[in-house]
Amino acid sequence: MTKTNSSPLAPLACIILAAGQGTRMRSTLPKVLHPVANAPMIEHVLAAAAELLPEQIAVVIAPGMDTVEKAVAPHRCVIQQQPLGTGDAVKAARSVLEKFRGDIIVLFGDAPLVTAEALRNLQRKRIESGAAIVVAGFSPTDQAPYGRLIVESGQLTAIVEAADATEAQRAIRLCNGGIMLFADGKLWPLLDKLRDDNAKHEFYLTDCVKLAKAGGHICVVAEMPADEVLGVNTRVELAEAERLMQNRLRRAAMLNGATMIDPATVYLSADTRIGQDVVIGPNVVFGPGVEISNKAEIRAFCHIEQAKVEEGALIGPYARLRPGTIVGGGAHIGNFVELKNTEVGRGAKINHLSYIGDATVGSKANIGAGTITCNYDGFRKHHTSIGAEAFVGSNSALVAPVSVGDGAYVGAGSVITMDVPANTLAVARGRQSNLDDWAKRFREEQAERKK
Amino acid sequence: MTKTNSSPLAPLACIILAAGQGTRMRSTLPKVLHPVANAPMIEHVLAAAAELLPEQIAVVIAPGMDTVEKAVAPHRCVIQQQPLGTGDAVKAARSVLEKFRGDIIVLFGDAPLVTAEALRNLQRKRIESGAAIVVAGFSPTDQAPYGRLIVESGQLTAIVEAADATEAQRAIRLCNGGIMLFADGKLWPLLDKLRDDNAKHEFYLTDCVKLAKAGGHICVVAEMPADEVLGVNTRVELAEAERLMQNRLRRAAMLNGATMIDPATVYLSADTRIGQDVVIGPNVVFGPGVEISNKAEIRAFCHIEQAKVEEGALIGPYARLRPGTIVGGGAHIGNFVELKNTEVGRGAKINHLSYIGDATVGSKANIGAGTITCNYDGFRKHHTSIGAEAFVGSNSALVAPVSVGDGAYVGAGSVITMDVPANTLAVARGRQSNLDDWAKRFREEQAERKK
Amino acid sequence: MTKTNSSPLAPLACIILAAGQGTRMRSTLPKVLHPVANAPMIEHVLAAAAELLPEQIAVVIAPGMDTVEKAVAPHRCVIQQQPLGTGDAVKAARSVLEKFRGDIIVLFGDAPLVTAEALRNLQRKRIESGAAIVVAGFSPTDQAPYGRLIVESGQLTAIVEAADATEAQRAIRLCNGGIMLFADGKLWPLLDKLRDDNAKHEFYLTDCVKLAKAGGHICVVAEMPADEVLGVNTRVELAEAERLMQNRLRRAAMLNGATMIDPATVYLSADTRIGQDVVIGPNVVFGPGVEISNKAEIRAFCHIEQAKVEEGALIGPYARLRPGTIVGGGAHIGNFVELKNTEVGRGAKINHLSYIGDATVGSKANIGAGTITCNYDGFRKHHTSIGAEAFVGSNSALVAPVSVGDGAYVGAGSVITMDVPANTLAVARGRQSNLDDWAKRFREEQAERKK
Repeated sequence: MTKTNSSPLAPLACIILAAGQGTRMRSTLPKVLHPVANAPMIEHVLAAAAELLPEQIAVVIAPGMDTVEKAVAPHRCVIQQQPLGTGDAVKAARSVLEKFRGDIIVLFGDAPLVTAEALRNLQRKRIESGAAIVVAGFSPTDQAPYGRLIVESGQLTAIVEAADATEAQRAIRLCNGGIMLFADGKLWPLLDKLRDDNAKHEFYLTDCVKLAKAGGHICVVAEMPADEVLGVNTRVELAEAERLMQNRLRRAAMLNGATMIDPATVYLSADTRIGQDVVIGPNVVFGPGVEISNKAEIRAFCHIEQAKVEEGALIGPYARLRPGTIVGGGAHIGNFVELKNTEVGRGAKINHLSYIGDATVGSKANIGAGTITCNYDGFRKHHTSIGAEAFVGSNSALVAPVSVGDGAYVGAGSVITMDVPANTLAVARGRQSNLDDWAKRFREEQAERKK
Repeated sequence: MTKTNSSPLAPLACIILAAGQGTRMRSTLPKVLHPVANAPMIEHVLAAAAELLPEQIAVVIAPGMDTVEKAVAPHRCVIQQQPLGTGDAVKAARSVLEKFRGDIIVLFGDAPLVTAEALRNLQRKRIESGAAIVVAGFSPTDQAPYGRLIVESGQLTAIVEAADATEAQRAIRLCNGGIMLFADGKLWPLLDKLRDDNAKHEFYLTDCVKLAKAGGHICVVAEMPADEVLGVNTRVELAEAERLMQNRLRRAAMLNGATMIDPATVYLSADTRIGQDVVIGPNVVFGPGVEISNKAEIRAFCHIEQAKVEEGALIGPYARLRPGTIVGGGAHIGNFVELKNTEVGRGAKINHLSYIGDATVGSKANIGAGTITCNYDGFRKHHTSIGAEAFVGSNSALVAPVSVGDGAYVGAGSVITMDVPANTLAVARGRQSNLDDWAKRFREEQAERKK
Repeated sequence: MTKTNSSPLAPLACIILAAGQGTRMRSTLPKVLHPVANAPMIEHVLAAAAELLPEQIAVVIAPGMDTVEKAVAPHRCVIQQQPLGTGDAVKAARSVLEKFRGDIIVLFGDAPLVTAEALRNLQRKRIESGAAIVVAGFSPTDQAPYGRLIVESGQLTAIVEAADATEAQRAIRLCNGGIMLFADGKLWPLLDKLRDDNAKHEFYLTDCVKLAKAGGHICVVAEMPADEVLGVNTRVELAEAERLMQNRLRRAAMLNGATMIDPATVYLSADTRIGQDVVIGPNVVFGPGVEISNKAEIRAFCHIEQAKVEEGALIGPYARLRPGTIVGGGAHIGNFVELKNTEVGRGAKINHLSYIGDATVGSKANIGAGTITCNYDGFRKHHTSIGAEAFVGSNSALVAPVSVGDGAYVGAGSVITMDVPANTLAVARGRQSNLDDWAKRFREEQAERKK
């Protein structure tokens, strides 16, 4: 056996296979673009790979997958013309990586749970063992027919498909996780030797192991947690990947000092940032781009995207913060309130049944129940400015562009179409008339008509 | 042993036992009417039985169970006068089934998870084995004291109650699932021989096995998944049945091409229809009668009943679609919006805090935040008609019956009581007055009063 | 071995250890004040202890834990000056318990799942065995390094730390649950003998077992369910304690006759009271102080705190009942409705998008969609009174203090600032003007400007 000489600090390139059509997803969206924790699956794979600072990443796609090409830019895509197996797919990357010298890791765009730590482990194993190939192994928790890894004296001697395995081999718990590392200079010569003399007439990347062995090279296994090799082929598996990713994100947030009443019902995005002593009620959805500062409380049934909540603010229940929202420290945003592209000052209160969009709300302002900013005229969005300590009476409509000055009052039920200067009271509503006994007569008439 | 001669194509009748009072449910509702996936438990049993196209179904109820009789109509109910055991209950069906010739399957109205496939398996087993009785067996996943099925040389030789089982018998994993198939002509003679010489003085249907054996007949077991024999006696078991049924429905929807971010929080009804590339957020409730077309997105916290969502529409978060709602293709229904008996045209938008009831909304109409249709006058409901490309300003009230024409505008905060012709602007609100320094004086007065 | 003579009816005192800082919680809140089922963890421990009617309870805290002292009042707190181990913590209670004669149970303020039944079992074991010490044992379901309990001939002979355990000892499933009972007169002499000659230089309460054995006393084990000894050190464990407590509360409510469509999504408080034939949809949050009467239905996405729902009322979906709310029998509270400090009469309806605060609503009153009580003027809250069978038109604002009499009507979109007598119609809104072709011209102008 020849030990490979590539140095511990060998440069790295990654090939990510993303050409699969994903028929069993029953979708028009390419499989690797199906999202997990609000990011396409392949983004998670790219992010894990990126942590290893590879010199190059090549993504193998099928013809016509322009949306994948856009999603992975600026990483380079190469096209596998025909679906002739994983070995063939990797060959497609040769044009862009042939001159690269260093280790090459082959990853799967539909296996979003892989971590950088697991990939580093492949590199460590390569260095320790001097192997030409390191294969990711795992111990499955289910009964699916995974290929078995045959290890003898610490070396991987064969990968046996479940269908071809003897009973003794099927008893082996170590299975093929798919991901493979090829040491410097080993990949392309092995690919040249691959043959498609099998039932499906495909070129299998896994056959490289037997070819490497035949060539006197060492192959080894680096074990990974079973979760990390989960590949997604159906929406049921997609839901399972989502669940595992969510549990990972939830656990990290809790260990960092956030309380979740029921973590299983808090939905995070990969980029959600949550401070210490934050309390999160059940059933809260964090879309992308959310930052929650220390001691904020997010009550049940909130839905937050592209928004920032500052220290000690109280949000919800049933508050929706849409993109461009910043809620200042200690502010209260209550039930059935929607904020969009709005900055709310420190200590302000918007407690009930309001839509505030394209607005600034001053510190300690009080926005009454049912207040609506009329920010759209059918053609353009306009801005509403509400001053510090202003008081907007309930059920008011503020027709933008309009401003309500510092300390101004708006009478309940008003439709405000002109600016309200500071400290001014604005009222814009009809006068009340009471018609005696009308209701009594109306009821009698209606009762009569029903006869 | 005598092999039964009934032909493979023997006609079928089903007896469904539904007379149990369900004391442990602590309810005034008869047990079999407690719903699972929004349908009474017994409906699920009837539906599974119906797939086998039986010639007759008889439901055994207790005296006074008129609500069950109504629920199962047009199937025939028979009354078990006294709760004298399962054998006695089946006897009650004799009056309506005595002339029927063919197989008879006895099912349980409080075991809603049985599938037609499992029942067909009973029929297949009867044909294969020539048995007089086929008993449903299952391997329990819990430690409850189920009766054990003693099988020797492929034949069921006895059913042993857990309390009477020897240690060796208790080690048997195959347990009695309750459901039984009696081959043509076998049931009534066996029932005649049943005796109540036991501790509870009840007639047990399971005793038919030992009587059949004594009479030289073959009895066999057909195994069923443990889930399918779950019987419901408490609300805890009802919740478990609901969970299992939901998982079945969720899985089918996902394999058909719907993405569920967290399937465990999507609640379906037995009749929910969901297309391909539909994306469903966490915490969505589908009541009965819902149809979601391809590429629609249902965001978190939606509640939808008796409604239809057409292709590519975007619903929620926090949208409630009530009975009679149709949302057209590409339309947007946003947060805190309630629709009832309303048809929304293609590409229309109702994005925030609105109640639209008994209405039609034209294509590409834009309904502002806080719009309310005043559809009820205390006596009758009236219709609101909004034309194509109409623009209803925020916080408006439309007092029905009223119509807003194609391309018309309604000014924000208006109360519309008269029809608005096409392309017309309608405004109905008070004029704004600003009172300088009023707010300043008011605050000073209030501060004074607080001293 | 000396059997202890304390009588079966020995008086009881409890010492609750609550001095831990809880660094791994990453919180400014003392650990034992982190809530489970809406009550601080230590309250659950106090409640379980209180059921045994102890003569005294002493809580051991660290210096500066005034908030814990307040939370446990009127129970007496004693201060452990330095964190020198559990034995040292118990010593701190000597000043207040030295004269007490009877059994002493030592409990943990961060282990909120203990039940009175388990504590009674410690007392029973003490009486049966005549032991000086009874140690709570449990069989863990995880692999954490718990101390092993070595039992020989029914007596506890040693507690071996996981780190010090032999392989044979590590195979023992019975582990140390922490809670200990000391028979009358045994605790203080043993504490005097404790030494801190170990790696951490701490005094371990568990060392009392070996000292007791050395002194010729009997020690025994009383087994507890693993759930009940769960100690909380991180927010992940806090979430697990919450989950277990919720499951306990849910199960009790279901067995008492409430249906929960998905119990895992119903969040109860320790004091929630739920009647029979109550149906609770998915995703319902019950804060503290809630009482739901028989046959009420609480639909999905409700959030209820300090409120009472009477027989047969229909709540939700998406209803928020805030403190001080009473919903009368058969009343309907619908979607996106918030009630606060409001009494709703029998059969009244508030079905859509309303905020009703500081109000009374008469029986059979009908409150239209979008109705808002303007109860706050920036300084004070005012009352709104709505009479029986009154009809409040949609999108109305009621400016408190104000009253709407029995049978009165309020026109849709009105701002009501003066009282409305019984049977009177009040209208307060602008007149409608229609401007022909304005919308057409506006659109043309806008289109022009966009060019």
